[in-house]
Amino acid sequence: MAIHTENIIVEKTKASRINSVDFSNLNFGSVFSDHMFVCDYEDGKWQTPKIVPYQPITLEPSAKIFHYGQSIFEGMKAYKDEEGSVFLFRPMDNIKRMNISAKRLAMPEIPEAYFMDGLKELLKVEKDWIPSAKGSALYIRPFMFATGKGFHASPADSYKFIIACAPSGAYFSGKVKVLIEEHYSRSANGGVGFAKAGGNYAGQFYPTQLAKDKGYQQVIWTDDNTHEYIEEAGAMNIFVRINDTLLTVPTSDRILDGITRKSILAIAEAEGITTEVRKIKVSELIEASENGSLKELFGAGTAAVISPISGFGYKNKDYELPELENTYGELLKKRITDIQTNQTDDAFGWRVKVC
Amino acid sequence: MAIHTENIIVEKTKASRINSVDFSNLNFGSVFSDHMFVCDYEDGKWQTPKIVPYQPITLEPSAKIFHYGQSIFEGMKAYKDEEGSVFLFRPMDNIKRMNISAKRLAMPEIPEAYFMDGLKELLKVEKDWIPSAKGSALYIRPFMFATGKGFHASPADSYKFIIACAPSGAYFSGKVKVLIEEHYSRSANGGVGFAKAGGNYAGQFYPTQLAKDKGYQQVIWTDDNTHEYIEEAGAMNIFVRINDTLLTVPTSDRILDGITRKSILAIAEAEGITTEVRKIKVSELIEASENGSLKELFGAGTAAVISPISGFGYKNKDYELPELENTYGELLKKRITDIQTNQTDDAFGWRVKVC
Ligand SMILES: Cc1ncc(COP(=O)(O)O)c(C=O)c1O
Ligand SMILES: Cc1ncc(COP(=O)(O)O)c(C=O)c1O
Repeated sequence: MAIHTENIIVEKTKASRINSVDFSNLNFGSVFSDHMFVCDYEDGKWQTPKIVPYQPITLEPSAKIFHYGQSIFEGMKAYKDEEGSVFLFRPMDNIKRMNISAKRLAMPEIPEAYFMDGLKELLKVEKDWIPSAKGSALYIRPFMFATGKGFHASPADSYKFIIACAPSGAYFSGKVKVLIEEHYSRSANGGVGFAKAGGNYAGQFYPTQLAKDKGYQQVIWTDDNTHEYIEEAGAMNIFVRINDTLLTVPTSDRILDGITRKSILAIAEAEGITTEVRKIKVSELIEASENGSLKELFGAGTAAVISPISGFGYKNKDYELPELENTYGELLKKRITDIQTNQTDDAFGWRVKVC
Repeated sequence: MAIHTENIIVEKTKASRINSVDFSNLNFGSVFSDHMFVCDYEDGKWQTPKIVPYQPITLEPSAKIFHYGQSIFEGMKAYKDEEGSVFLFRPMDNIKRMNISAKRLAMPEIPEAYFMDGLKELLKVEKDWIPSAKGSALYIRPFMFATGKGFHASPADSYKFIIACAPSGAYFSGKVKVLIEEHYSRSANGGVGFAKAGGNYAGQFYPTQLAKDKGYQQVIWTDDNTHEYIEEAGAMNIFVRINDTLLTVPTSDRILDGITRKSILAIAEAEGITTEVRKIKVSELIEASENGSLKELFGAGTAAVISPISGFGYKNKDYELPELENTYGELLKKRITDIQTNQTDDAFGWRVKVC
């Protein structure tokens, strides 16, 4: 069920804001492009899709988004190469994951072709908003939330799906220090941790603030039952290098199946780096740090790509990572960014040309 | 820090909808009263509170409510007695709990007196909307959500607090059959289950739908680690009567500290019923059902007050509760409702007269 792109109603802005934006000085996700893709789910079906000027949304106070947290999102990027061609990176994986999230939150799934066609059309309209400077990209935020009314705790009967865009620079600047969490958790067995559900993020803010107050920038989440196993790094998947092996933990119903994570694993293998996907104990990290075999720790996700970690805190003690040259983190970041931005062959078939 | 009630800006509707409402035929939470209390948190402080006509809310597409689930709520009721006086039930407990939720979700706390004054003023304006028929009440929904902008996963810098009202009839009609959950969970150790956070509810919908497909109306949540202990009954606390003892489980960071629950415990004790607050194993329920000592099971919460359970499913087997006369459930429901609606003395000091 593709939407014929000629069926998307396109209403262009009369007053582009693009000249007011300093593209050489972009933060992450704080300036929004001129247009957005909008589609409403009503009466049991998706209604006419539109591309309209980026504009406020009006909702009833009883709209279920305000009360029962039915909200999901995705995070993806569009890249522009030197010739001005526009690319997406593994977009079908985001689309499929959005629908996995939708199902778990009892929200309607979005027909895949529908999502893809809307996104491509939007990017054609927003082409000039895609930055090409190194490290920057057009951050794309597809999201869906409950608009249906009522104070009864049950799924809504209507939803709004939007794709908005924000030309963005780097997410973090520099290395981060992280705190391994001993008390708080982000997700439960049988819960919604594997979904990109809004509620998962709100729950992380307070523990992250407490970590910040102690001088750390992020939290390493551990399993909620024993807090003995590391799970994610803030809103990123986590990678550990012990000697020359690159490790990450298996995904589960508590852990997001990150697209960067699985791409990094594939690239590392192609580079001849030994990888292992298995549970990792906090005690193993500590031991490896103490005996010198812990070489690198980094987070991986679309927003930050790879975010190197300079040290971690655990039970009131700080552990430093060594300062290496030629890290796996830098190598893998270069490899994946080169693929994303069309600087190299697309050996894995991940790049999708939009226009 | 009370708000002087004369400082609340009151803007009355020019077109009341009250005559269009059939008060003898009310559902739960689907008709909204004429006015709402609104207060914005901006620039680090709460701005001028207002009572305005119930009306749509306009938000930026990047408002964090849509992306990161910063939303909390409360559920309370206003009751009208035969003389037309208006009462609240333990409102300070809702206010305190709202702030407990706010803290966990990294949202600003609402000064208690501020909340209370706004609520009372609103109820004076909405007095005619409070139904007095048995079983009905004005359901009150205080809620707060993030309005601050940006795609960065961090707490918002502005919020909106609203109190809206819905004249409501009974939440459930009749007894419900429940399914004891063996796979899904609503909350994690160290998570946000004890908070009335929107995301907790969205996460319950899908498992509840699966239970409905199997012929049950609600899910009994179990601990996420072993699924061996019962925790809550849908969006209610759970009570079990074994022989003549009334049991409920202790609250924890996974379980909401329900106001109905603690009131029921206090009333039961005053009635001379033996109560026990301790963990309850699913296997204990099954055993008690099989040996005939399991007499009653019910959920307790503001919306449904007490919701009797007629049977439960577990591991593909159904267990029936006996049909008793003079149940604890009915007795306790009558006692608490009598207090709420000013039909009896307020021995516990729970009632608050509004006007
Ligand atoms: C909780 C969480 N883990 C991991 C990731 C990384 O996923 P991806 O690489 O698909 O962006 C994200 C999103 O960026 C996330 O929100
Ligand atoms: C998860 C949950 N448990 C229990 C309750 C009962 O709490 P209260 O009695 O304060 O309404 C509620 C809310 O009604 C709830 O949402």
